[in-house]
Amino acid sequence: MDFRSGGHVYGLHRVIEPEGSLPQAAQRLDNETGAYDNEIVIDVHTLNVDSASFHQIVGEVGRDEVAVAQRIRSIVAERGKMQNPVTGSGGMLLGEVRALGPNYEGPVEVNVGDKIATLVSLTLTPLDLDSVDKVYLDADQVDVTGTAYLWPSSPLVRMPDDMPERLALSALDVCGAPAQTKRLVEGAERVLVLGMGKSGMICAAAARDAMGDAGLVCGFDLRDDNLVAMKEAGIVDDYRCGNAKNPVEVLELAQEMASGELFDVVINTCNVSDTEMAAILPCKDRGKVYFFNMATSFAKAALGCEGVGKDVDLLIGNGYAHGHAQMTLDLVRKFDVVRERIEALLEA
Amino acid sequence: MDFRSGGHVYGLHRVIEPEGSLPQAAQRLDNETGAYDNEIVIDVHTLNVDSASFHQIVGEVGRDEVAVAQRIRSIVAERGKMQNPVTGSGGMLLGEVRALGPNYEGPVEVNVGDKIATLVSLTLTPLDLDSVDKVYLDADQVDVTGTAYLWPSSPLVRMPDDMPERLALSALDVCGAPAQTKRLVEGAERVLVLGMGKSGMICAAAARDAMGDAGLVCGFDLRDDNLVAMKEAGIVDDYRCGNAKNPVEVLELAQEMASGELFDVVINTCNVSDTEMAAILPCKDRGKVYFFNMATSFAKAALGCEGVGKDVDLLIGNGYAHGHAQMTLDLVRKFDVVRERIEALLEA
Repeated sequence: MDFRSGGHVYGLHRVIEPEGSLPQAAQRLDNETGAYDNEIVIDVHTLNVDSASFHQIVGEVGRDEVAVAQRIRSIVAERGKMQNPVTGSGGMLLGEVRALGPNYEGPVEVNVGDKIATLVSLTLTPLDLDSVDKVYLDADQVDVTGTAYLWPSSPLVRMPDDMPERLALSALDVCGAPAQTKRLVEGAERVLVLGMGKSGMICAAAARDAMGDAGLVCGFDLRDDNLVAMKEAGIVDDYRCGNAKNPVEVLELAQEMASGELFDVVINTCNVSDTEMAAILPCKDRGKVYFFNMATSFAKAALGCEGVGKDVDLLIGNGYAHGHAQMTLDLVRKFDVVRERIEALLEA
Repeated sequence: MDFRSGGHVYGLHRVIEPEGSLPQAAQRLDNETGAYDNEIVIDVHTLNVDSASFHQIVGEVGRDEVAVAQRIRSIVAERGKMQNPVTGSGGMLLGEVRALGPNYEGPVEVNVGDKIATLVSLTLTPLDLDSVDKVYLDADQVDVTGTAYLWPSSPLVRMPDDMPERLALSALDVCGAPAQTKRLVEGAERVLVLGMGKSGMICAAAARDAMGDAGLVCGFDLRDDNLVAMKEAGIVDDYRCGNAKNPVEVLELAQEMASGELFDVVINTCNVSDTEMAAILPCKDRGKVYFFNMATSFAKAALGCEGVGKDVDLLIGNGYAHGHAQMTLDLVRKFDVVRERIEALLEA
């Protein structure tokens, strides 16, 4: 394989417009030029689309595999990357190392032929799709044939050999959240997790793992299926069901679970908009609210919190944290129920 | 004055649509019904419009006092509150207490006739405008005749008598930022403030006040007017000028000021969009990035940070913090240059 020179450390060489922006902010990336010498080239097998993005696409085109596939192809054709123009979010991918540029010095040692997953968002990954081969409507995943390129500042991980690829990929997609949950719950007595889908379950497991049996871990979701299983397994102590778009109701139900008290840490993993206040109201004075929900509005969180006069720290869910991939895989290995429920989502 | 019963602690009684939402999230508030018995009624004299909002309105209708006044009247007529439909942000107001409901138990003691400022956003303040009387294009302020209503969870402050009202109001509008800056810089050696307008100057002063002379406080802005004055006064040690929409350039200039190092804390007070990465790139590993910029995109910050593999804490600028009003007024009293530069903006 021939490699071009001139690749930039932050991938600026792949930006078509606007000029000078970083790849994530770009309207359009160059997905046609062959590999640069500081890049890794990946044969892409599966895209794990961000939940908010997938949800939006299904809402737009309907629950139809062919229509979802077409929409994904059109987004990638237009932007050179799988970045949902409405939600702004991406996801991650699974593939196999096709080639390594001579100047690629990546974060982990990989060789040609290794199965890898990218831990960097699809919003900044130059992607060239030949075809979308299968859509998994309940797993937010699509199997594809295509090529992706990445530079050294982009985290990736060699796939573990003790669990199915699809399971590992699905868990790794949200691995920033449990790593930060572990830090946030240090010293906390009460933690509330809003949304008990994949990231909610892994965050609850991270909280339980860090806090031990003494900590109160509570869950909230529209549906109770995962919550029942999480309570039976002892990961959450209690839960309630309701609509997180109704913050006053969430506050009342949360206080029921905490004997009338508020929570030290609230983690919002809902994948819908207008749930900012549902996370803020149940948080105690000087507590921490962690938003790992791509549908979060910055302004709604900032102004809404001021509007109810609450002095709490509001944290944006950074998708990267040191050791996040390993920690997430370890949680899936340790808590059988989390593994089983994620597998159930994948098989649905 | 007659008062109605049935007022809700979080102001739900003023929400017209969508039903059940909190006032900030509401599309439209009831600004026509008279006072409830848990409300304070305010004769409104001045609106201090959020900088991003004012900037957007001027961009839309042009630098024309009559057109800006008309746009503000139309927004308030449509929504029952001064919430910019594009930026989602509001501002605050200055006025005089007209009446106190018998069940109003507010955060500070006020009496009828007191001059007060609201410390809660205009995005959730029911506002009925009779007229817009004067527009101050360079101060983001308008003098008006109108009525506002607030319930007890909404912070407000009695105006200080040792400084002009317009100055106090302008400073109080951003008082969440310096209070949180003071907490964030604890233990920090190097702080970078992006944007050196009103909130940037007060944040830099808060950082200097908390860190003393040993700390390195650096500034960055498109223009150098405030930066020169802040450096002469010893509040910032060094500064650079440039466009914060170009993150790689900001990184290079920031490193120049810190002898090639990165910053423990970066505070983004720019009032324009696409400046998330300019704050993230100069921040050191495990440092803190504080966004006090209403044009911040949640998704761009979260995904952009992941995209460059940086493990930093990303904080949403909460507009409320305990003691924020007093602390901000004290900074304006202590640092003459900050007072002078804010007054210069108001007189322009």
